[in-house]
Amino acid sequence: MASYLVTGASRGLGLELARQLASFPASEVSRVFATARGYAPELEELAKKSSGQVVVIKLDVADEASIKQAEAEVEANLDGKGLDVLINNAGILQYSPNGVNTMDNLTESFTTNVLGVHWVTRTFIPLLQKGTLKKVVNISTTVGSIALARSFHPLPAPAYKITKAALNSLTIQYALDYEQEGFTFFALSPGWLRTDLGGEVADLPVEQGAKASLERIMGAGKEQNGQFLNILIKGWDKAGWRNQYDGATNPW
Amino acid sequence: MASYLVTGASRGLGLELARQLASFPASEVSRVFATARGYAPELEELAKKSSGQVVVIKLDVADEASIKQAEAEVEANLDGKGLDVLINNAGILQYSPNGVNTMDNLTESFTTNVLGVHWVTRTFIPLLQKGTLKKVVNISTTVGSIALARSFHPLPAPAYKITKAALNSLTIQYALDYEQEGFTFFALSPGWLRTDLGGEVADLPVEQGAKASLERIMGAGKEQNGQFLNILIKGWDKAGWRNQYDGATNPW
Ligand SMILES: NC(=O)c1ccc[n+]([C@@H]2O[C@H](COP(=O)([O-])OP(=O)(O)OC[C@H]3O[C@@H](n4cnc5c(N)ncnc54)[C@H](OP(=O)(O)O)[C@@H]3O)[C@@H](O)[C@H]2O)c1
Ligand SMILES: NC(=O)c1ccc[n+]([C@@H]2O[C@H](COP(=O)([O-])OP(=O)(O)OC[C@H]3O[C@@H](n4cnc5c(N)ncnc54)[C@H](OP(=O)(O)O)[C@@H]3O)[C@@H](O)[C@H]2O)c1
Repeated sequence: MASYLVTGASRGLGLELARQLASFPASEVSRVFATARGYAPELEELAKKSSGQVVVIKLDVADEASIKQAEAEVEANLDGKGLDVLINNAGILQYSPNGVNTMDNLTESFTTNVLGVHWVTRTFIPLLQKGTLKKVVNISTTVGSIALARSFHPLPAPAYKITKAALNSLTIQYALDYEQEGFTFFALSPGWLRTDLGGEVADLPVEQGAKASLERIMGAGKEQNGQFLNILIKGWDKAGWRNQYDGATNPW
Repeated sequence: MASYLVTGASRGLGLELARQLASFPASEVSRVFATARGYAPELEELAKKSSGQVVVIKLDVADEASIKQAEAEVEANLDGKGLDVLINNAGILQYSPNGVNTMDNLTESFTTNVLGVHWVTRTFIPLLQKGTLKKVVNISTTVGSIALARSFHPLPAPAYKITKAALNSLTIQYALDYEQEGFTFFALSPGWLRTDLGGEVADLPVEQGAKASLERIMGAGKEQNGQFLNILIKGWDKAGWRNQYDGATNPW
């Protein structure tokens, strides 16, 4: 009986995480707070079918007031209980096809990918403290690994890489601050997935990435606090590109 | 005969780097562009004594217009020659003594420590391309190492750690983009130094940190491109705190 909150659930990985969470019986997943910044028809459809298990909440991660408003709605919906798992999934990938020196989108990427996660996390900490699992998952990417930067140089998205590295650092600051209280914070690389962001030539359908991500999220315990985890995809675990499907951890 | 530009030279490490650079004969260090955002009396004094070797330039790294203005002044002063070495030293350390969840200075730290370095670097790239050494040094810190985060948890400065991790990622994006052109970009940890930022209980006097930093900067070649270097302090290289004086590299 755990409650989840997912940001950026209008489409892509966030929507699929909400969908798969809703396929668990209410005895395992009691509530899915699926948040979106705008009107999200597919998500509304999912909520309608779920008869109360999925609750759609308006939340723009780049707007702290909107996050506070969302938190009040979530609290009202929890009947005095806490929130168990927070999945910071919303994110943007911005390109600089003409090189890092032409990058003019670093602040925008930073606001969504780093500040947004910080604001959402701190706003929901009190509800998480009342929860039983105290788990916070920040959806990151191997592309944000500084150690692996050379491998990913062909992807002309410096703002994405820099802000995901910053997100990884943010994750570990929270992990260390809340460790004593029994929290588990980790960064998760969900694989290269076919979504608007990942593109059509990505390695895996989003369903497979979401399934493997949920296995990792549900299976993670305090030993994973402060780590940068990969999903496990059998068959890709050794052959996989950049080892990102080995179910182990990434270098920072 | 190399020309240098140092940001944040009003005090601390930047001032000391300018001072020590000015102690080299003009045949080795032809010009030191020592930049500061405001009036810097000690720097003016140094420039006056240097009879032309040290040139003070106004430059606020958080203001792109000021950087462009500074670039025009530097160019005019170079008589058609290029700039050889850029040292991105300006930086701020901001605290959140009550924990990462109370952090409200992340954007400000980000602007100075990451965006500022990006703006200065891209603005001076054309002059560096005309230079002979093509070296760019980003003054970082072991405290920004995500891998070493647990060791540095007692320092309640999450915005500093997160933005220096982002700076490290920025550094490697530039390193990879400009490698083919013969550039050397690296992040340098200058040690824990007695400055306003480092505090009085720091390990080393600023003179020693600046000297060891210049040894590392002058000694670095293309093999160091994209690395995260430590200074070498004999006697501290094995016993030193967090190995940050071993003259080797840091984990990201
Ligand atoms: N796809 C991959 O291959 C891949 C790989 C590694 C990591 N990831 C990470 O996985 C996460 C989801 O990616 P995706 O592939 O699902 O991307 P996507 O298909 O582009 O979807 C992005 C989601 O984030 C939401 N979002 C963006 N800015 C927002 C804001 N300010 N407030 C609220 N929501 C916002 C979008 O909402 P709107 O519909 O309103 O725009 C959308 O729901 C991201 O963090 C991404 O970095 C993806
Ligand atoms: N001291 C240490 O132990 C230590 C350790 C590792 C790394 N570092 C790094 O070394 C660098 C220098 O540190 P420090 O110890 O010398 O610090 P400091 O004594 O506080 O001096 C900081 C310098 O940065 C300048 N600065 C700040 N914001 C600026 C801006 N927007 N535009 C232009 N200049 C700006 C300051 O100018 P004003 O005088 O105008 O404020 C000053 O010259 C920093 O990047 C720091 O992170 C220091």
